[in-house]
Amino acid sequence: MNVTVNGRTRHYRTITFDSHTNQVMLIEQRLLPHTFKVIGTKDFRATAQAITDMVVRGAGAIGATAAYGLAQGALAFPGQEMKKFRKHIQGVYETLKEARPTAVDPVNAMNQVLRHMEQGENVGEQQALALAAAEEFANEDARHCEAIGKHGSKLIKNGSRVLTHCNAGWLAFVDIGTATAPMYAAQQEGRKFHVFCDETRPRCQGATLTAWELAQQKVSHQVIADNAAGFLFWRGEIDLAIVGSDRVLGRTGEVTNKIGTYTKAVLAKRHGVPFYVASPLSTIDWNLKSGRDIPIEERSESEVLGAWGIDATGKRQYVRVANQSSGARNPGFDVTPPDLITGIITPMGIFKPKDLWKNRHKLGGA
Amino acid sequence: MNVTVNGRTRHYRTITFDSHTNQVMLIEQRLLPHTFKVIGTKDFRATAQAITDMVVRGAGAIGATAAYGLAQGALAFPGQEMKKFRKHIQGVYETLKEARPTAVDPVNAMNQVLRHMEQGENVGEQQALALAAAEEFANEDARHCEAIGKHGSKLIKNGSRVLTHCNAGWLAFVDIGTATAPMYAAQQEGRKFHVFCDETRPRCQGATLTAWELAQQKVSHQVIADNAAGFLFWRGEIDLAIVGSDRVLGRTGEVTNKIGTYTKAVLAKRHGVPFYVASPLSTIDWNLKSGRDIPIEERSESEVLGAWGIDATGKRQYVRVANQSSGARNPGFDVTPPDLITGIITPMGIFKPKDLWKNRHKLGGA
Repeated sequence: MNVTVNGRTRHYRTITFDSHTNQVMLIEQRLLPHTFKVIGTKDFRATAQAITDMVVRGAGAIGATAAYGLAQGALAFPGQEMKKFRKHIQGVYETLKEARPTAVDPVNAMNQVLRHMEQGENVGEQQALALAAAEEFANEDARHCEAIGKHGSKLIKNGSRVLTHCNAGWLAFVDIGTATAPMYAAQQEGRKFHVFCDETRPRCQGATLTAWELAQQKVSHQVIADNAAGFLFWRGEIDLAIVGSDRVLGRTGEVTNKIGTYTKAVLAKRHGVPFYVASPLSTIDWNLKSGRDIPIEERSESEVLGAWGIDATGKRQYVRVANQSSGARNPGFDVTPPDLITGIITPMGIFKPKDLWKNRHKLGGA
Repeated sequence: MNVTVNGRTRHYRTITFDSHTNQVMLIEQRLLPHTFKVIGTKDFRATAQAITDMVVRGAGAIGATAAYGLAQGALAFPGQEMKKFRKHIQGVYETLKEARPTAVDPVNAMNQVLRHMEQGENVGEQQALALAAAEEFANEDARHCEAIGKHGSKLIKNGSRVLTHCNAGWLAFVDIGTATAPMYAAQQEGRKFHVFCDETRPRCQGATLTAWELAQQKVSHQVIADNAAGFLFWRGEIDLAIVGSDRVLGRTGEVTNKIGTYTKAVLAKRHGVPFYVASPLSTIDWNLKSGRDIPIEERSESEVLGAWGIDATGKRQYVRVANQSSGARNPGFDVTPPDLITGIITPMGIFKPKDLWKNRHKLGGA
């Protein structure tokens, strides 16, 4: 999407590849929203480290980063011996896989690259195929987000007031994003609307990343405390909610997403406001049989007990907000049941959550 | 309630009066939870300033502060001339009233003191009556909170997990508090339970004041992001919610309280968890006919766009969290309808919200 730096606006993807220098180019997301910077990783180890250190985050984005990282590792191989090359590739694969051990996207992305590489008969061919496959993975991610935007944009009318939670924006993918895709498409189609961004404590991805994205795209928006959405629903000031997803259960229509999503869905239901979940196909889990089986990560207490921001001198720092001797609970995600979800916006169209399973062949399921 | 300073535990009230030095003694609440300090205001002007500067906040607390401030002003009068004394008292009254122009509690408290003073026949008698009336106002506030605790404590069983929002604790009153009163009473009665404190963005009174209070009283508790309560309800980890109130409509049973209260009430209803509002009599408004008529204050954007805390060196400071070019909406309160409220815990007992009106005589209404 567009980013304006020093008055100059140009299009960026979250991840690209510089084949001249054999570097994966990443937006340094830890500096956002206060500083915009693109960094290059000098080798696959640095790429893996960037995933570990959360320079790049988000399902689609880390998938593409791992795909490019595998190509980067392949291209750095100096010789022509296939046996040594294969062993080298195995090491690259393991390093990138270990960068975020619980995530499934890097593994899926790299497996796709490996399948393409196998069609090459020598090192040179396999190197070229690796890069082409990584590019194709990234392009497909962007195309899928674009398709989500095409299907979802009709939900946003002129004057619509849209609630979103956390960041399911282009920064979490290669481009365009999922929850944001309908917004960007509606804007391109010339409609005016307003977005309320839940700040999304404790990590505040709404106040930082989503607000930054929308500001860069010149989409009208305001940040709200997570507490404020209920009041806005009550006052009739929200027409539509669109959120992203960390996992959609294809069998039940349940959705895991950032903590707080469930609360907003309950409020939307009470007020008769449509509640949509945007989801790429890779996020649909066709195996799990119940949302109760989804492991919910309990994250560090320090996230809840304080906040990161920039001080008066512009220095980024953490302040402790809560009482010093108090602890915290910090579940990272919650589960929203299908009866609270109006529709799942996928690249293949909008489906009622209960209809995912019968459309599983169309949606890439088993 | 008890506060432990340098290993020594003693009982404090939020506001007391030092008749030797003619000072109102206040806990400097702006320094909490990181520093506990009691300050004395040297004259009624300094007392008014302390109200304005939010050294002291909370309905009961600022009422008692104004009552003591009026007595302080009366006691500082040097002569015996009643005419001059009356004029002086009028000036003291106006100064304290202007300290927080929208608040009704200081005015009600001072009117109560004035009524008592009028029974004195000379300056000396009126001075003595002023102080006695201020003491009685403070004692009554504490007695009412104690009665709320007595009625509410039976709701908290051994093992109960209680949710609370914002701070309706003893710091907002003279002692004991309202939402916290049942907790402190249940603890005194020997029961063990656990409290989840919503951090209560944007000002985080839950993470700072309520967590500090509970830690000082050694009540088991954890801070949670406002987003997390929905997940805890879903997991069956909350048995009961108790919150305070900024205004209870005696005619309809609607409750205005800190932003986010309504959301928790909606969640409690969905999960069949009892939701109680603790309220002193002074908070019941017998005039307003609809919650839609309650003016909701829109507060400063900066509260939502950043956070106050202490940095690594222990210095208190504000950090900007949100994207720099983004704005915010910041409604300070919301309105919870009576169908979501199990009961209103008052000093006179627990009432269903719809039953307040028929019990208005018992509850101090018209």
